[in-house]
Amino acid sequence: MRQSELFTRVERISPKDEEARSAKFLVRAGFINKEAAGVYSFLPLGLRVIRKIEGIVREAMSQVRGQEVLLPVLHPRDKWEKTGRWQSMDVLFKLKGREEREFALGPTHEEIIFPLLKRFVSSYKDLPTYVYQIQDKFRDEPRAKSGLLRGREFLMKDLYSFHADEADLGQYYDKMIGVYQNLFKAMGIQPVLTEASGGTFSKRSHEFQLLSEVGEDTIYYCEKCDWAENKEMAEVKTGTKCLKCGGKLEEKKAIEVGNIFKLNTRFSEPFEVMYKDEKGKENLVYAGCYGIGISRLMGAMAEVLSDEQGLVWPETVSPFGAHILELTGGSATKIYSDLQKKGIEVLYDDRKISAGEKFAEADLIGIPWRLVVSAKTGDKIEVKRRGEKESKLVKISEFIKMI
Amino acid sequence: MRQSELFTRVERISPKDEEARSAKFLVRAGFINKEAAGVYSFLPLGLRVIRKIEGIVREAMSQVRGQEVLLPVLHPRDKWEKTGRWQSMDVLFKLKGREEREFALGPTHEEIIFPLLKRFVSSYKDLPTYVYQIQDKFRDEPRAKSGLLRGREFLMKDLYSFHADEADLGQYYDKMIGVYQNLFKAMGIQPVLTEASGGTFSKRSHEFQLLSEVGEDTIYYCEKCDWAENKEMAEVKTGTKCLKCGGKLEEKKAIEVGNIFKLNTRFSEPFEVMYKDEKGKENLVYAGCYGIGISRLMGAMAEVLSDEQGLVWPETVSPFGAHILELTGGSATKIYSDLQKKGIEVLYDDRKISAGEKFAEADLIGIPWRLVVSAKTGDKIEVKRRGEKESKLVKISEFIKMI
Repeated sequence: MRQSELFTRVERISPKDEEARSAKFLVRAGFINKEAAGVYSFLPLGLRVIRKIEGIVREAMSQVRGQEVLLPVLHPRDKWEKTGRWQSMDVLFKLKGREEREFALGPTHEEIIFPLLKRFVSSYKDLPTYVYQIQDKFRDEPRAKSGLLRGREFLMKDLYSFHADEADLGQYYDKMIGVYQNLFKAMGIQPVLTEASGGTFSKRSHEFQLLSEVGEDTIYYCEKCDWAENKEMAEVKTGTKCLKCGGKLEEKKAIEVGNIFKLNTRFSEPFEVMYKDEKGKENLVYAGCYGIGISRLMGAMAEVLSDEQGLVWPETVSPFGAHILELTGGSATKIYSDLQKKGIEVLYDDRKISAGEKFAEADLIGIPWRLVVSAKTGDKIEVKRRGEKESKLVKISEFIKMI
Repeated sequence: MRQSELFTRVERISPKDEEARSAKFLVRAGFINKEAAGVYSFLPLGLRVIRKIEGIVREAMSQVRGQEVLLPVLHPRDKWEKTGRWQSMDVLFKLKGREEREFALGPTHEEIIFPLLKRFVSSYKDLPTYVYQIQDKFRDEPRAKSGLLRGREFLMKDLYSFHADEADLGQYYDKMIGVYQNLFKAMGIQPVLTEASGGTFSKRSHEFQLLSEVGEDTIYYCEKCDWAENKEMAEVKTGTKCLKCGGKLEEKKAIEVGNIFKLNTRFSEPFEVMYKDEKGKENLVYAGCYGIGISRLMGAMAEVLSDEQGLVWPETVSPFGAHILELTGGSATKIYSDLQKKGIEVLYDDRKISAGEKFAEADLIGIPWRLVVSAKTGDKIEVKRRGEKESKLVKISEFIKMI
């Protein structure tokens, strides 16, 4: 798209009401807009990143046979009473409508998915089954100062798996660890698989923790064998030996971008989600849940992959594949249309502003390939990767091969 | 996908808590699940229909240069105070969080989009500009009995256009009438363009009204020239002459599936959204808004396109392109994979149930092409269109040409 037509524009001054570097960059570059603490709008550039992340996640979910659903934001109170979480979950947004009808704004969807499951599962033949959703969730956080890293309203993917027994759940759960690692790798990041508390209903859960100084989680991490444990579990300490390889454990700050959790029968019990086995006996359904913070991931990538000049998007999640800067004396209209014909998404800076401004803005926005067309480039283009210093003068056909 | 693996299943009994035929069919066939009055989950089949509708709408929005954004559900109270609608809008869901922070759940997004516009528009060079969103909206309706036709939580598309003056707004507005008509046509429906009230801030608005006995709107409609007016405006009456062609006006019930509205300066005033013109003079921005009820459309299509046996989806919005029924003695695995290779989305009924049940369920689900493979069909398939009585025995290659 032509940058002169883009709804947003880059701002010169960093927002004063943001603390995290990622939030400063994302706001200044026009990816997001802050509506309230922890509540953001996703603007055209930002929504493009979200959609790319969602695309990678959807692809992975269909590989593990997840079927997509869309569940409501408004959760009737009675369902949350049934699990005891109307009282116990302190971040629950509560709402009273007409005729005293009370709702929670869904922070997670067990209270919706389990009764739904009851409608469709009655026999062992109906299991296993896998359902996921990507949607807005809500938590009334006491503190929401880290931009997209901790939102009051945020986008999340949750997959729920349902099984006839613990063994089948265990197999699927183990498989999901690898699926998650591949999925994050496709986004250009490698969060650390971290052992964490299983809550009141299972021994262990796993978190995917992206090492970062601004992270709100603390983990003990062994660089040697990549083993890690969340500090909350407190079985190990910094400086002590890694339980796995004997290496030295270090305390690290990290951003939790995903987690997987065995729910076992915690929610099938209150909602009485049962199935008949081959002998006709009624059993409780076993379940697992597998979360990914979609909007948090965008913030986390903006945090760990950026440099002093701005954002640095991996090709798989970048809002555009290439950024053409047209400088005085050059014309990029043909290159723009040629690249589009090849299916490359291009942001074309056709504005009449100085070269210096264009370079600075391109660095801030962080599209992986920067293409300069000027009086000097002739029938070639000057190609530079975001994050690298060297540029190269190449023909368009050569660039198409590079990308 | 194989129907044996589908998360949902068709139910034999119609839900007792639904009044509208569309809701009865959609619930029974497993497209949606009722969570509360006016609050639904979209299950795999239903979400596929929603995504198809969204796809058609997005395509049309990009034709009129709309840029997609995603705005929050949580709207801070102060923005709604500024327009006076915190008090005046009686369907507003209100919410109080920690530290007495108050929010409305967005029923529409003028209170978010106008302050956002202020951030990016300051000069005549920034106009016109067009922004749209497809997302969950909320209205605390006094009555929500018609399934997806009137929801408390629902999916909607809203495009906002911003202009330097009334004339430019007028041109875009007129163009949108045609864009909307084409967009609905692509979904297999032809709602009536209906003149309606412009509220307190413009003379006229236009609604797109789909004639249906269950509709909650009443319009005066001239069959001869297709002119219509909403009864609320009350300038004409049934039996009187059409103002346009002299034909006879009739009172009809209809479902409003879209509306377009000139906001003029109604919202740029309270939020002081101004731009500098070529002479350096400050002016208010003119705006229009263009809505489509995404989830309501799904309900409306289920209402007007269905028959006694069930749903009848147009090809462009159907959850799948073809429905293969494998009956005793037939094997459809090769046909299933051949069609998928051709890019056709197929629901493959591979379950071991009776032919009668398969036929009845296929009619209820309403996929446009039904393909039967049985002991009798040999190397051919028996093809029937949903809604037609005749079936045809054809080769797969012939069917691929037909579809």
